[in-house]
Amino acid sequence: MRSEILTAAAELFRARGYRATTLEDLGRRLRISKKTLYGHFRSKEDLLAAIFHRTMSLVEEGLAAIRASRAAPAEQLREVIRHQVRTVVAEQAFLTVFFAEEAALPMRLRRAIVRRKARYDHVVEAIVRRCGRLAVHPRLIVFALLGMSNWTHKWYDPTGRWDAQFIAEAFISLIERGYRPPAGMSDRDVERRLDALRAQLRDLGRLLEKRARSRQGER
Amino acid sequence: MRSEILTAAAELFRARGYRATTLEDLGRRLRISKKTLYGHFRSKEDLLAAIFHRTMSLVEEGLAAIRASRAAPAEQLREVIRHQVRTVVAEQAFLTVFFAEEAALPMRLRRAIVRRKARYDHVVEAIVRRCGRLAVHPRLIVFALLGMSNWTHKWYDPTGRWDAQFIAEAFISLIERGYRPPAGMSDRDVERRLDALRAQLRDLGRLLEKRARSRQGER
Repeated sequence: MRSEILTAAAELFRARGYRATTLEDLGRRLRISKKTLYGHFRSKEDLLAAIFHRTMSLVEEGLAAIRASRAAPAEQLREVIRHQVRTVVAEQAFLTVFFAEEAALPMRLRRAIVRRKARYDHVVEAIVRRCGRLAVHPRLIVFALLGMSNWTHKWYDPTGRWDAQFIAEAFISLIERGYRPPAGMSDRDVERRLDALRAQLRDLGRLLEKRARSRQGER
Repeated sequence: MRSEILTAAAELFRARGYRATTLEDLGRRLRISKKTLYGHFRSKEDLLAAIFHRTMSLVEEGLAAIRASRAAPAEQLREVIRHQVRTVVAEQAFLTVFFAEEAALPMRLRRAIVRRKARYDHVVEAIVRRCGRLAVHPRLIVFALLGMSNWTHKWYDPTGRWDAQFIAEAFISLIERGYRPPAGMSDRDVERRLDALRAQLRDLGRLLEKRARSRQGER
């Protein structure tokens, strides 16, 4: 029941805004009395706080699992993008309230959330730093990838053609290789061609040596 | 005066949320009477609408100038990122209200803003499509680059070390080449291997010349 109330509250807050929504609206939507509502949450603010805590816990737990996986850093980073997009898509109402209503939180809770978000960013940054040489400051990489992933809450359409996995893989491709397919030859191509040339030359050298030896035999 | 009121309103709405802010708060902040305020805006809703219109006009005008520039598509795309980050950084309060308070708009205006945003995305997508072969669906490229640029309103610190230009160039680098410097062979490596091959060929040539001479001697 508690979880059902929370989900309905997130959906209402998302559609109308937190301040514009009353507990009467919520009771009507769930067809329960205000008394039942108050059995689970003391106030509207309490509901908002629960939405923030649940959202923060969701993303933190996912990140903890990624760190515990011991995968290579670049793969952990891919997992962060997948986790982030997956969460935004699966919990669009919660995440929309989370991103839009921070100003409505009581100051103490607001500060706690700011701290937890900073810690989260910090952990993602540590993963980025372990990816080796970087083309861009690691903090800006973190902001960029969280930005593109989190922004999904603004445009994601559950009836649309793309699921979370497709979106995440597109973002991973973008952040790893850029928006255009590799121009000209890849490094692999160059290497392959050089190796082929080297082998040809070696064969030629051997052939010449063999002929030289056979002529010496002739004499 | 109108612009001053609007800026103060955006800052208050950003800090406390639109619904939680009263026109009394705004009058106190500006040290003007409610009567003066009403001389410029009919209501709080009217203020919110003006913030949305101004923000939308700002980003639309920048985009129109980019299209009019006739630069190459890839350069236009870079300009879009610069324009977007620059606007978010210069007008952080306006953009924060714009991104967070859409639900507070009256329905008719909300629909108009949704249409204008869709048109904006569409124009950016047309630029992306003209960039030639793409590694990712153009619409996802648009969402990714607007996402990372717009997200800046969440973390940008005017007292911090990075300005809009630095942030934009980092995002451009990311979206064009990915977060890691090109892996594999450096140009130096390629050069070294080509030199080695050239030396092998030269040796082979000398060997052949020597053998040809010695054969002539034999005859």
